This record gives sequence, C-alpha cells and structure tokens, in this order.
Amino acid sequence: MISIGIVGATGYTGVELLRLLARHPEVRIAAVTSRGDAGTPVAAMFPSLRGVIDLNFVAPETEHLAACDAVFFATPHGVAHALAGALLEHGVRVIDLSADFRLRDPDLWARWYGQPHGAPQWLEQAVYGLPELNRERIRETRLLAVPGCYPTAVSLGLLPLLRAEAIDVSDVIADAKSGVSGAGRKAQVGGLFAEVGENFKAYASGGHRHWPEIRQTLEQVAGGPVGLVFQPHLVPMIRGIQATLYVRPLRLDIDFQSLFESFYRDEPFVDVMPAGSHPETASVRGTNLCRIAVARPVDSGRLAIFSVIDNLVKGASGQAIQGMNLMFGFPEQSGLDIVPVFP
Amino acid sequence: MISIGIVGATGYTGVELLRLLARHPEVRIAAVTSRGDAGTPVAAMFPSLRGVIDLNFVAPETEHLAACDAVFFATPHGVAHALAGALLEHGVRVIDLSADFRLRDPDLWARWYGQPHGAPQWLEQAVYGLPELNRERIRETRLLAVPGCYPTAVSLGLLPLLRAEAIDVSDVIADAKSGVSGAGRKAQVGGLFAEVGENFKAYASGGHRHWPEIRQTLEQVAGGPVGLVFQPHLVPMIRGIQATLYVRPLRLDIDFQSLFESFYRDEPFVDVMPAGSHPETASVRGTNLCRIAVARPVDSGRLAIFSVIDNLVKGASGQAIQGMNLMFGFPEQSGLDIVPVFP
Amino acid sequence: MISIGIVGATGYTGVELLRLLARHPEVRIAAVTSRGDAGTPVAAMFPSLRGVIDLNFVAPETEHLAACDAVFFATPHGVAHALAGALLEHGVRVIDLSADFRLRDPDLWARWYGQPHGAPQWLEQAVYGLPELNRERIRETRLLAVPGCYPTAVSLGLLPLLRAEAIDVSDVIADAKSGVSGAGRKAQVGGLFAEVGENFKAYASGGHRHWPEIRQTLEQVAGGPVGLVFQPHLVPMIRGIQATLYVRPLRLDIDFQSLFESFYRDEPFVDVMPAGSHPETASVRGTNLCRIAVARPVDSGRLAIFSVIDNLVKGASGQAIQGMNLMFGFPEQSGLDIVPVFP
Amino acid sequence: MISIGIVGATGYTGVELLRLLARHPEVRIAAVTSRGDAGTPVAAMFPSLRGVIDLNFVAPETEHLAACDAVFFATPHGVAHALAGALLEHGVRVIDLSADFRLRDPDLWARWYGQPHGAPQWLEQAVYGLPELNRERIRETRLLAVPGCYPTAVSLGLLPLLRAEAIDVSDVIADAKSGVSGAGRKAQVGGLFAEVGENFKAYASGGHRHWPEIRQTLEQVAGGPVGLVFQPHLVPMIRGIQATLYVRPLRLDIDFQSLFESFYRDEPFVDVMPAGSHPETASVRGTNLCRIAVARPVDSGRLAIFSVIDNLVKGASGQAIQGMNLMFGFPEQSGLDIVPVFP
Repeated sequence: MISIGIVGATGYTGVELLRLLARHPEVRIAAVTSRGDAGTPVAAMFPSLRGVIDLNFVAPETEHLAACDAVFFATPHGVAHALAGALLEHGVRVIDLSADFRLRDPDLWARWYGQPHGAPQWLEQAVYGLPELNRERIRETRLLAVPGCYPTAVSLGLLPLLRAEAIDVSDVIADAKSGVSGAGRKAQVGGLFAEVGENFKAYASGGHRHWPEIRQTLEQVAGGPVGLVFQPHLVPMIRGIQATLYVRPLRLDIDFQSLFESFYRDEPFVDVMPAGSHPETASVRGTNLCRIAVARPVDSGRLAIFSVIDNLVKGASGQAIQGMNLMFGFPEQSGLDIVPVFP
Repeated sequence: MISIGIVGATGYTGVELLRLLARHPEVRIAAVTSRGDAGTPVAAMFPSLRGVIDLNFVAPETEHLAACDAVFFATPHGVAHALAGALLEHGVRVIDLSADFRLRDPDLWARWYGQPHGAPQWLEQAVYGLPELNRERIRETRLLAVPGCYPTAVSLGLLPLLRAEAIDVSDVIADAKSGVSGAGRKAQVGGLFAEVGENFKAYASGGHRHWPEIRQTLEQVAGGPVGLVFQPHLVPMIRGIQATLYVRPLRLDIDFQSLFESFYRDEPFVDVMPAGSHPETASVRGTNLCRIAVARPVDSGRLAIFSVIDNLVKGASGQAIQGMNLMFGFPEQSGLDIVPVFP
Repeated sequence: MISIGIVGATGYTGVELLRLLARHPEVRIAAVTSRGDAGTPVAAMFPSLRGVIDLNFVAPETEHLAACDAVFFATPHGVAHALAGALLEHGVRVIDLSADFRLRDPDLWARWYGQPHGAPQWLEQAVYGLPELNRERIRETRLLAVPGCYPTAVSLGLLPLLRAEAIDVSDVIADAKSGVSGAGRKAQVGGLFAEVGENFKAYASGGHRHWPEIRQTLEQVAGGPVGLVFQPHLVPMIRGIQATLYVRPLRLDIDFQSLFESFYRDEPFVDVMPAGSHPETASVRGTNLCRIAVARPVDSGRLAIFSVIDNLVKGASGQAIQGMNLMFGFPEQSGLDIVPVFP
Repeated sequence: MISIGIVGATGYTGVELLRLLARHPEVRIAAVTSRGDAGTPVAAMFPSLRGVIDLNFVAPETEHLAACDAVFFATPHGVAHALAGALLEHGVRVIDLSADFRLRDPDLWARWYGQPHGAPQWLEQAVYGLPELNRERIRETRLLAVPGCYPTAVSLGLLPLLRAEAIDVSDVIADAKSGVSGAGRKAQVGGLFAEVGENFKAYASGGHRHWPEIRQTLEQVAGGPVGLVFQPHLVPMIRGIQATLYVRPLRLDIDFQSLFESFYRDEPFVDVMPAGSHPETASVRGTNLCRIAVARPVDSGRLAIFSVIDNLVKGASGQAIQGMNLMFGFPEQSGLDIVPVFP
C-alpha cells in the first residue's frame, strides 16, 4: 500500500484519477490539492465521488505532498516544472500528466509552449510513459512523463509498422478526432454545449502541441526523420479519441493483420480487432484499452489504421496509473481491470 | 461461487448484466442465450466485451440453463412466463428483469400487457425486488421480480414519506424523464439518433405500464388507495432517469431532510444529498446508486423530491444483482462497488 | 422599411435576432452593439452570418441608436434600465428581451433580481409582450417587455383554462425542461458540453426568477391569487423547452380539446395538436411556433398539458419580432414564416 | 410557377425537400408519394410540417406524377431506374437524389450497387448535378443526377486545385465525417441514439459507394487517373459533413488562399473562409452553403482542405433544388436564401 497525492484535481484528468485510484487495491489517497478550492470537500465539487472520497482539497504545498510515495500532477503546463524538483529531492516519485517533461529537447518545448522550460535539469531522469514502448525504463524511473491523449492513440497505431520498418516514414498522415473533455474543465465559450453540440470542426491547423510530441516518439522508433501531418478535430461527445492513420507501406506482401496481432499479443491494454473491424470509441469508454484495426483502402497503395482510446483513461489518468503500477512493481492491470460501460 | 445463465442477453439490460457479472467475485457466467444469435460470440455483438466474455450465445433451452444456480431473464414480457416455471422446478432461482411477475394481480397484468398472464401459479412465490422495501423477503425467495426503472426511481423518492404517513396519498404527481436506452435495443425509427437527438417530448400520456406497478408499491406501503399521476418523458441522453415528485405534506413542521436522511442512513445504494442539492443523472452513471434531494417550492404547500438513477443499473441490471446477492447470502454490494464515470 | 438597432448582440438571443431580422422584409439592421467587441465584424464572431450581416459591432452609445426606429435589448438585466429611457425620449421604440420591464411591481423585481429597479418611471408604459394575451396593447406601446422563455411556454399552456375559469387556480404545477442555450453564451463550467451532455438535472429549486413573472401573468388572467409550483430542469440539447403542466379541472364534463382548439383557432403561432399527441421540441426548432397537447392522466382528476417552444424564438427573439410587427403595423408573421428544421 | 412531385418523401431527404419547397416562390407541391403510407397526411408523419403541407401521401403511380413539371426521387437506389423513364417520356423532368444516374458507367454501377443497372438507356441524358462543375449542362438537362453528400463536400474542396493542375492527383486522401442523418430514416439498431451517441467510428473501410462517384468527378476534371483514398466516419450529431482533404501540391509557391477565393468568387453557395479558419458544420446548418478553408500543416509538403456542408441540404435536397432552379431558369438562390440556425 502506497500513499499518493494529486496536484490539481479539479479538472477532468484529476477527477478521473480519483475515480480509478479510489478502487486501486495498493493505493491510499493522502492529499488532493487545489489552490483555489482549499478547504472544500472533494465530493462537494464532484458529486459522483460522494461516499467515495472523504478528503477536502488542500493547498499544493510541499508539506502536504512530501510524505507521499508518489504525486500525480494533473495540472496545466508549467506547474510540474515548478514543483516536481522539490518532491523528487524528498524522494517522492512524480507522475506528471501535463506536457512538462514529455519533450526531450527543452528548446523545442519552449518554442511550442511559449515560455522557457522550467526544469531542464530533471529532463535526464524523465521517462516517457508509454508502456508499450518504454516498459522497462518506466519500472526504473522516478519521474514519469505521461503521454498526451493524441500521442497515445497515434503512437500505438504506428508502433508495429515502425518497428517492422514496413512503411515510408516520410509520409505519415494522422487525422485525429477527440471528444470535448480533452479541452479540460475550463470556463470558456468554446466548450459550451450550445457551441460544440451538433457541430464538428477541425482545430489547430496552424500546429498543435502534440505534433512535436508524436514526431519525437515516431522518430525515436524509426531511428531517423519522420514526415508527419497531424490534424485534430473536435467531436460532439464527452470522451473518446479516434486516430485514423494513413501510411504508405514499403511492401504490400506483408500480412499487416498478423504483424499487429503478434506485436500486441502480450499487451494487457491493446486489442487488435479482426480484419474488417471498425473500432468504436464507446467500446473502450471508461477503460484503459486501446482498440486498433487495420484496413486497406480500395485500389490504393495505402494502409489505414484506426486506433481508439478513452482520452481520459488510456489518454491520461489510466495510463498514468499503469505507469505507477510499473514503477512500484504492482500488477500492471491493478486498479484498471474495468469493463467498458456500453451503451 | 455460483453459476448463472442469462436469457435474452442481446439487449441493453443483458449487456449490462454481463458487464457487471463479469467482475462479480462470486459468479461464473455459464450460459448466455439468444435464439436468433445462437453460435455467435457474445463479444462479436458487443465489442466492449472483447477479452471479458468468451462465450457464444446458445439457444434458450432448459438444458443449457437447468444446471445454473440462477437464471436472469432480460427479455420482453411473456418470455419469463413461458420459461421460468421449468427452471424453478429444476431448483434454479429465477431473477426476472421483465415485467412478468411484478404485478400481484394477474388480471391487472393482462389488462396492461394485452395478453393473459402466462404463469399465475408462480405469482405467490414471486417477490418484488426492491431491497429498500423487501430486503428480508428477497433473501428467502426463489423468484425475484426486479422492479422497472421508473418504479425504482419513483418509489425510492416516496418511501420515507409514505412510511412516515407524512403526505396526502391521494395527490401524488410523478413527472419522470428517461434516457433513451430505456426503450431497449430494438430496430425502430422512433429511437434513431436523428429522431430523439436535440429533442424532448412526453410519451405514453394515455397510460404507461409502469403506472400500475408504481401504484401497487405505493398502495402497499400506504396501506390504502393512492392517487397517482405518472407522466414519462424522453431525454436525449443514453442513460439516466430523474423522477421529479410533487407531493402535499400533511404537516409542514416536519424536517423532511432529516426524515430522508434517517430513513436511508444504512442503505448502501441510496444517497440523500444535502438540502439545496440538485442530483444529476451523470453523478450515478454506470452505478447502482440512487441520489435523492428534497426541496420546498417557493410559496406553496408542496414538497418536490428529485430522485435520480442509472436506468440500466439501479433501474434494471444492478438492482437484479443486488437482489441476487441477497438471495445467495453474498455481501449486498458485491460486484456493485463501482465509482460513477464522470464526466 | 424601418431601421433597427440591437444592444448586446453577442449572446444567443442576439444572434437569433440577427438571423431572423436579416430576412425580415420591412427591416434594415442599422447598428449592432457590443462594448467589448466594438470594431469586430459581426460575422467574425458568428460565422453562420458570413455573407448575411456585413456590420461591425459598435459601442452601445445613444448616438448609434437614437436614429433607429426601434432598438432591441438582448442584454443581461439592468442594461435596459440604464439605456432605455434616453432612447424612448428620442422617440425610439424599445423592445426589451431582458427581464427589466416584465414585472409590474418594482419592489418584487428588486427582490428577485437582487438590485433596485433602475427605471420604475417607465414601468407604466411597458407592455408585457405576449401577443396571445396583450395583442391590442402591444400595438400601441413604445416599450415592449418580451416575456421570458419559460413564462411563454407555461402561460400559453394555461391561458385557455384560466380564461374559461375551468381549473382550480390554487393548485397549478409547472414542471419545465429547457435546452442549455437558455443559460446564455457565458463562459462557465456549468455549461460545458462535458458537464451537461449525457446528463439531466433540476435546478433553481430554491426559486427561479421566472416564477414571479409566470405568477403575475396567471394572476392577471385569473383575476386573483394563483398557487404555482414552477420547477425547471436542464436537458442535454441546445434548443427547446417543454412545460408539462398539471392542473385540477373544476369540472370534468368540459371538452378540453375543443376549448384549446377554439381559443387558439386564429393564432398564427399556436398549434393545438390532436388529442393523444405528444408535441416534441424538434417540431418547432428554429420557429416561432408553440405546439400544445392536452392529456388526461389515467385514473386521476387531473389534466396534463404539454407545451413546447423553441426557447430562442417564441421564447425570445421570435416573439420580440412578433411584437415589433404588431408595434409597427406589419403583418404579424412577417419575417417569421419559417418551416421547422427537422431532423 | 411549376408543379412538382416527390417520390419517397418519408425519409430525411424527402422531408427536407418539403421544408424547402414549401417556401419556394416558384413551386407548387402537387404529389407526395409513399407506397406504404398512402392516405396518411404528410403532417401526421412529420409534425414539423403541420400547417405547412396539407397533402396526404399517395401511391407512387405514374398517373399522380405525369402531370408534374418535375419529379424528385428521394428513394433508395433502383427506384428511379424503374420509374424515371416513364416520366421522362411524359415530358416530366426528373431530379434524382438517389445514386441511380450518378455513375456514367453502368457496369461500375452494377458492381458497387450489387444489381444490374436498371436504365442504362437514360444515362446519356443524365447530368451530374454539381452546379459548380456543370452549371451550363444542368440548365439543359431533363434528368438530373444529384450528387451524393460526401462527393459534394469532397469535390468542392478539390475543384480549384484540380482545375489549376496544382496537385499530385495520384495521391489524394479524403478523410470524411458525417452526422447520422446520412444513414437515412430506417429502423436499424445501428442508428439508435444509444448506439451512436457518445460514440465515434470509421465505417465502410472495405469500400464505400461514394468512392467511385468521387473518383469519377475528380478524373473528369483532372483528365486522367486519380489515386483516391476515401474513408468515412460517423459523428454523433444529426446533420453535417466535414471532409478533411490531404493533398500534395506540385508547387509550393502558389497562393492557395487566392486560388480558392478567385475560383469561388461568383458562386452563391460556396464560401471560402479567411486563412487560418476552421469551418464548422453548425455554421451551415439548414442551408445550401459549403464553407471551405485551406491550411498548411506544419513542416510538411502537404495542404489540408476543410470542407463543410449540411448533408441534407447542399449534400442532397438543397442541391437538388439548386439544380431545379437552373433547369427551369429560376434565380439560382430561389428558395435557398436561408440563414443558418446557430446555435
């Protein structure tokens, strides 16, 4: 049994951490912080947690957190930069759901996030927390950079092809679609039901911060430059991401279905569906699963890969817990063995 | 560990039983039937169950079911009438989610369901499965009639007032609103997304089959005739029911908040919220909880009670499992200790 | 052809005024104001108006508005109090969609809106703009108080009964349900898609500002005190209100269907549906229609009336234009003869 | 004033034709057919048309239709094959919203629609009804093949590039997303609110019937073979299509924004938005508009084009009426000059 803290638990990834950790057999939630809501019962803000979480929010002071075995950051970027170092020095393991430690290059980070990197000295220790890519390194790290939601869906759809050197890496197109919880729990007109309901649109066509993150992963695996188009869209639903990936195989005599099936055979959270399937986001709702299918568009030299996740679970809080399980030697599925809610 | 069967698992209450029973520590799912889909893997119809349920559908023959300790019926009305008797005679306990054994009076049943009651000889043994009303009788029964979704939400909102003889029972108004999964998984134009999305309407104003069921419960508790208006409405959401109940207190000096709180103090699945609250259906999504609040409409002699449930869980499959737990002596929350998925 | 101005056109009732007035054959839109967005093209904020409205927002100064024949206020309460007087003194007619001039009693207004009434001297001239109630007075007024959305749906459902003195006015229950555009275009967590989607709840059980407004109308028609329970709910859809009204007839030998049909026979925007109907909000989407049906709940002494409108049209901007048509002697349906968008 | 008939008006494109034609100044609706619902008032099936359409459905017999100036087919494929010839021989112009006359090659049609082409002798006379491509030929035809919804959105997004020979036509990727009304008004489990709400998925990855239709248009304009990937997806909304198009420019020194703006300068229903825009489907809801934006994905040699339409209007019934206007010499915007409903 470990004791954990959560910094910034008033957003959607925060409440999702609380939902999942509340039933994790190896975890005790010790501190839940929010500067603005200190003193408020967590369950007063989130009635879904009545009878589940009895804590009040506390201010995010090191004193409340330093006694924890691990601290999760479910915060806007910049916060983990400021606070993680002190916790690491106290021996606390840090699991950061924000973008603060995802990019290896602090200058690249600065360029995309519009401010200097606040903790470049810790980058060396940070491990990018995609278990299907970095499982062994995650076991050893004290500072986990949990991948973004889009990067998770896109990377899992491409890993088998990159490992097999089966595609032209100069020409990868990722058309991604996300439910609106991905935009967070911020008061903004653009997220109102009347604005995004019965509506569909692309966004961030000028460049999305997940683009350099995805490219970094793909290039690491490919061992060289990758040409990537990444275009996100907003779907009128709460949870779920689908990435539709268009790639050009180098050879067409490969059995891509088998390639994916063998690559992911032992992965507890990746499900390769039968040929001809169309994975749907509702089939992973509330769970840490990624479902993938491979298709061959008619009369074209391309492959299409469909990859779906729940953006708040495998795309954030669930993957963070999967990482925690590895870091502490718990069974990898601990606390995450949940059946999707359908319908 | 008991072995169970499910008859008619291709609908929404069926797949919800599978979701919940798959993680129930005391249950092994032995047979899942569907006449039309015999031979098909359950997970081929419901991709959310891939890796969770490995069975194929079988035909609903007694031979497949008679070896079970309990059989759930998640079927249209009439099916349990036809099949339950044989199973009961084999010593199988029957948990019927349909309306077949809910009404005590077979003639009343025949009038509302438009066909003769098919098994009046078993009515004597049937127990109405609302644990908050009939817990002890449920423990003893071999034939459980699981309450309807609306009746659950309405009855739980009124039980404390009726037990306390605190309201005028001749004048009860239940304005109820349900998500569309309540209409089942049937191919029908009226349930299409394009018909019910961005839309709201009343239905069944000429009389809904849950009206006699609700009235039967209220009259049993009140010990005499109850005047009930029950009007259902269709909400453009998948899951959730809210019943808004308008009643006339006999005295206004009662502390209704305390009345509700003490009545439900020990109930594992009923949450009385603080005065001034507005329970929301999303706060119980995917769980067996009922949340209730009591309000005093401005300048009127009335009370308003808000009662919300997930129609597929406390309104159907979850309550059926709660009943099963009681019938077999398992902890009442076994398999149902789930945190709501929010958002 | 008249020239009109709109104060506060950045909200949903504002953009709806623009949609409808842009095609009104007797109207030229001269000025659209927004203090915060002065200088911005209207169509940059609302892409739906590209190619339709070529104006920029201007500051809400009297100079921009005093040359108009009429000015609409689509503003939070208090703004029309501050600005209407100067315009009226310039001979401009004022059509106020806010609550500022709806209540006859300035003290009652102050109590419910939490601030002193800002223009009690103009109350005498204000006419409550429900054409089905006040058509002749609307023709003569220079200051129109456009009814609220809920009050429109509720009042239209009760007018025939009150005029006929057919019900017990001490016992009226209005259970109302609204789409979320009714909450306006404000940045607030409570209106986010992820909060209100797949969710249903009551709100304002402690008293909603439309309660005194509805009661005022009902009492005016009834000629004495009315006992009213009014409980609103939030529906996960953008547009639409349904009011479900429960009343107790004084006599049951009345043909209520005929009563409603004859009362509304000549009304251009009220449609009494056949007995047994359930009007749905989608059937009035985008239009100034109110559809009504009358039902007799099983085995009760009550009537149920279902009344549906589009909250942004008959509940706000459309009714405002209907009033303008009357004030200026245009055909009452001018600019409002629109077929509902279904699905 | 012309007299028109509609065959198969019980679906969504049928009711949309009725909505739009009911307010068309040059049209009188003479006959609305439905074999299964002959005798039923149209407004009984579609309450949104109460007070708008007073006709009853009649059987689709030539006698009811031969006196019309034009007949619209809003039918499944095969019906226009069977009935159009007789009408054409009676001198009636035929406007077919189905796929029956879209493909020039009857064998290709037979392959994709799984049955022999039923009227190859009329193909010569058929004109593909995309006004932005074939305006002059549409004016002259007696048999209009109204384009499919996806083909409209995709083709309009590519026409300027193809005409300018600005892209590599061997490498076009169209990732398309549609609201669920595109699947029609058929009783099917796959279209239920509980199945498609809060859900997103690709479909038809094995080949969609709009693929050969799109390719035919692109090849006609390109004057040679086109390599096309077309992948549709289902969005949990009622109306709207977005096509996101990824193409590889042959030269990067072209000002693509200007190219699009000049190409569509005089088109009444195509709106090229400013650089950096993200058109949204809600901004064209209920109208015949197509809005387009051009983007340059970061650090790639590609262009992305976003094209949005209302699938039931520009993607079906509106475009059919635009074609009718051209065929009969009416102003092209007649009956279609509608402001989008937002929100």
